[in-house]
Amino acid sequence: MTQTAASAPVKIAVAGALGRMGQAVAKLCEGRDDVVVVARYERPGVDGEGLVSIDEALALADVVIDFTTPEASVALAEKAAGRGGVALVIGSTGLSPDQARRIDQAGERIAVVRAGNFSLGVNLLIGLTRQAAAALDPRDFDIEVFEAHHRRKVDAPSGTALMLGEAAAEGRCVNLADVQVPARHGLTGPRTEGEIGFSVVRGGDIIGEHSVVFAGDEEILTLSHSARDRSLFARGAVVAAKWAAGKGAGAYDMQDVLGMRG
Amino acid sequence: MTQTAASAPVKIAVAGALGRMGQAVAKLCEGRDDVVVVARYERPGVDGEGLVSIDEALALADVVIDFTTPEASVALAEKAAGRGGVALVIGSTGLSPDQARRIDQAGERIAVVRAGNFSLGVNLLIGLTRQAAAALDPRDFDIEVFEAHHRRKVDAPSGTALMLGEAAAEGRCVNLADVQVPARHGLTGPRTEGEIGFSVVRGGDIIGEHSVVFAGDEEILTLSHSARDRSLFARGAVVAAKWAAGKGAGAYDMQDVLGMRG
Amino acid sequence: MTQTAASAPVKIAVAGALGRMGQAVAKLCEGRDDVVVVARYERPGVDGEGLVSIDEALALADVVIDFTTPEASVALAEKAAGRGGVALVIGSTGLSPDQARRIDQAGERIAVVRAGNFSLGVNLLIGLTRQAAAALDPRDFDIEVFEAHHRRKVDAPSGTALMLGEAAAEGRCVNLADVQVPARHGLTGPRTEGEIGFSVVRGGDIIGEHSVVFAGDEEILTLSHSARDRSLFARGAVVAAKWAAGKGAGAYDMQDVLGMRG
Amino acid sequence: MTQTAASAPVKIAVAGALGRMGQAVAKLCEGRDDVVVVARYERPGVDGEGLVSIDEALALADVVIDFTTPEASVALAEKAAGRGGVALVIGSTGLSPDQARRIDQAGERIAVVRAGNFSLGVNLLIGLTRQAAAALDPRDFDIEVFEAHHRRKVDAPSGTALMLGEAAAEGRCVNLADVQVPARHGLTGPRTEGEIGFSVVRGGDIIGEHSVVFAGDEEILTLSHSARDRSLFARGAVVAAKWAAGKGAGAYDMQDVLGMRG
Repeated sequence: MTQTAASAPVKIAVAGALGRMGQAVAKLCEGRDDVVVVARYERPGVDGEGLVSIDEALALADVVIDFTTPEASVALAEKAAGRGGVALVIGSTGLSPDQARRIDQAGERIAVVRAGNFSLGVNLLIGLTRQAAAALDPRDFDIEVFEAHHRRKVDAPSGTALMLGEAAAEGRCVNLADVQVPARHGLTGPRTEGEIGFSVVRGGDIIGEHSVVFAGDEEILTLSHSARDRSLFARGAVVAAKWAAGKGAGAYDMQDVLGMRG
Repeated sequence: MTQTAASAPVKIAVAGALGRMGQAVAKLCEGRDDVVVVARYERPGVDGEGLVSIDEALALADVVIDFTTPEASVALAEKAAGRGGVALVIGSTGLSPDQARRIDQAGERIAVVRAGNFSLGVNLLIGLTRQAAAALDPRDFDIEVFEAHHRRKVDAPSGTALMLGEAAAEGRCVNLADVQVPARHGLTGPRTEGEIGFSVVRGGDIIGEHSVVFAGDEEILTLSHSARDRSLFARGAVVAAKWAAGKGAGAYDMQDVLGMRG
Repeated sequence: MTQTAASAPVKIAVAGALGRMGQAVAKLCEGRDDVVVVARYERPGVDGEGLVSIDEALALADVVIDFTTPEASVALAEKAAGRGGVALVIGSTGLSPDQARRIDQAGERIAVVRAGNFSLGVNLLIGLTRQAAAALDPRDFDIEVFEAHHRRKVDAPSGTALMLGEAAAEGRCVNLADVQVPARHGLTGPRTEGEIGFSVVRGGDIIGEHSVVFAGDEEILTLSHSARDRSLFARGAVVAAKWAAGKGAGAYDMQDVLGMRG
Repeated sequence: MTQTAASAPVKIAVAGALGRMGQAVAKLCEGRDDVVVVARYERPGVDGEGLVSIDEALALADVVIDFTTPEASVALAEKAAGRGGVALVIGSTGLSPDQARRIDQAGERIAVVRAGNFSLGVNLLIGLTRQAAAALDPRDFDIEVFEAHHRRKVDAPSGTALMLGEAAAEGRCVNLADVQVPARHGLTGPRTEGEIGFSVVRGGDIIGEHSVVFAGDEEILTLSHSARDRSLFARGAVVAAKWAAGKGAGAYDMQDVLGMRG
């Protein structure tokens, strides 16, 4: 990887350049002097003005930002690891465990930042949730995760809600799968101690609301995040790209980028 | 029914006097000059200091306040209707449609106020929800009902959440049963136009939180109610009792008591 | 005014066409068949591609949408009233009482819709607030208005917060000026019965959050609105323009447009 | 101080035994085997069944729990420090800096836990606020503290709101006094970078709501606490009493009790 001097902008290639996130990343980099988009590419068969091939993109860039599909991200990771000299920021969702493993394996050769949500606030929320869950006794406080998204979202709960549930479970030293209650309906019976419940709202064009509720007998602690605009995620990806440029090989996530590990 | 003069307190009998709500009603009436508890009774076989029989209670009171069981409330309604000279305030929950019908039938002979929730705020919320649902186009605004209750609650969504969903459906001139989505989990697909979704949190000792969300593309209207103490429901029942004393025969609810009908 | 047939789009002129709201209105009308922008103009001395004079704009349009300055709006209103044959939608803020009066006076000759906030949700919230304030006894429920806006806003509370306070005062048949408590700090003493308090948050890029809180002893009713994008206000202005096209002379506001009067 | 064995209950004396918090503490200890109330006292001149003198209370107890007045708490601290053999839990509010210092000085001889708020959740919130403020760049995120309390509260903002503001300032390595904006009203001008704003609601019987808002350009992180019942504070004081019994001399607060220091 080219060592980027403080004064030289980080050279970014945008994968999926015609997609919504690809466009948002490119737009965010316009007119800045710390980052510059040097290449934009799309999947084979898609043409567009100014697009280059993936190989050209890898040759030109310090970092590739990729919000595409699991298959395309795996292919990129393997190609980039074989080639070296470039870092990756991967935000594709819906990865299978095997696909995630194959992407992270590229971290043995190059720097790879992979995250389900690039928002600074969400990643801080994850860390705070882990701590609060560790501090509050499950006999006294019940944990619930709430999320709301726009009417077009096809799955529930959101990936970020599950990440929050995992952080809460981790704080309590349990597995989320063992304590998770996905949605309550009908004759549920009373809540059992230690369970982590999820609730979901869908409507309008809500970008993303997440809350973790710690409900005690006489008090409630609520940690919440509200996203107002999707450019938020592009912004976080660019922060990650700047962090990853010149970083040694490794499979990282946003907790690393934000210095919240440990 | 004895016509209650402005200066004479309304004479109240408390059914289920040893239960949580019975005790709350009696406590709320202490030291007031507009209402007085003249009789307290329990189901047959339960003894306690100062308890009388249901017949004595009906003979002494202007109004009976009853938060007991569906069976006990039906028996009370039929006995009181046969006897006359007394009004009823019924707050028992879990009534079957047939039990509700039999209680309302007593309204042909005496004044019966039956409600699932005696909170002033909740009943106002129901009216406001109906109006907002009527004013906002289903093509532009999605409706969701959220509720949170304590960890001991055994069913979901709450009766009050369903009442709010019905008010929203009524405002849109549809049946709730046709548009209701009880809880979202897994691959739900995108939201369909006109559906009314429910979401549920359980934890701690939350007395009752309810929100109706109208989510549009660039704005959200939220109508919410939060109950802090169960004495709230006793207070509403006493307001209903004062309203019902001396009222003509009829099957009423809290919308009548609060003058929000029509 | 040209009577607009159902099939003919409403012809719109955009005042302050190069301003943020002017651009938002023009963008919203793109590609629609119910409205068409036929003229765009700016204040004298400002040039731009495709701009016409105010006189040309008045000659071409069914309705002028104007989010500019108090002076420019007064001048537009007087010119349009003198000319006739056009309706106005005025969203300029910071009008003095005299400026507001001069604009409303144009309503004697043409249809003028003037509003401080063109959001459908906010205008519904105003109506619901009036009703809730009328239904809830000031001895039992305290009213507070909360608002949050972005860090660049220079005044507090927001005009919309004041409109909500006025609606609450109107519901209670009092003048807001007599009961308003603008901000609490220091040794305030206990709250007095009937006062309406305001609280204000400033930060980030919050477009606009408003809540009206009715706080009783054991319950709280909260009516809230959240705006996510400024295009919301452009959208409401276009709804008002469609309503105003072909309407008889009168000084109207969004409560008229939404049919919430009375 | 008597070293308390695991099996022996901690012996508690209640100062201000006839006050609201004194009664709440005594009630909370009823029927427990880990704590026992061995003495109850009031200020000189106040008589009541079972009350003892302050000297008898100090002789009998492992820990004194004191929610009284600044003067009474200072007197207790000085007397207890002179005598030794007892720990103190002090929850009186409205202390002057000098009074606070005199109480903390007793910590040179005995264990003294002094706190403005004994809620577990609030104290956790303080720690999380400090961390979030340290993690989020003041150029990107604006911090605001919101609080709501009942209509009888005579000062604003609440002591707990100020503690949250101090935690936020500490996280940013600044003094709250230098950046605090107590309430916004009128022509405030735009927000300045780094300021920490406060907003206040008063109404009904709200026990205590606190939120810390971190508002960025496209996202908001909110950390909130809601108290539902004052017995919460009694509960926290008893937790502190158990922790303090047998602890070495020192001036502590709830961050120590909860192990959240550092």
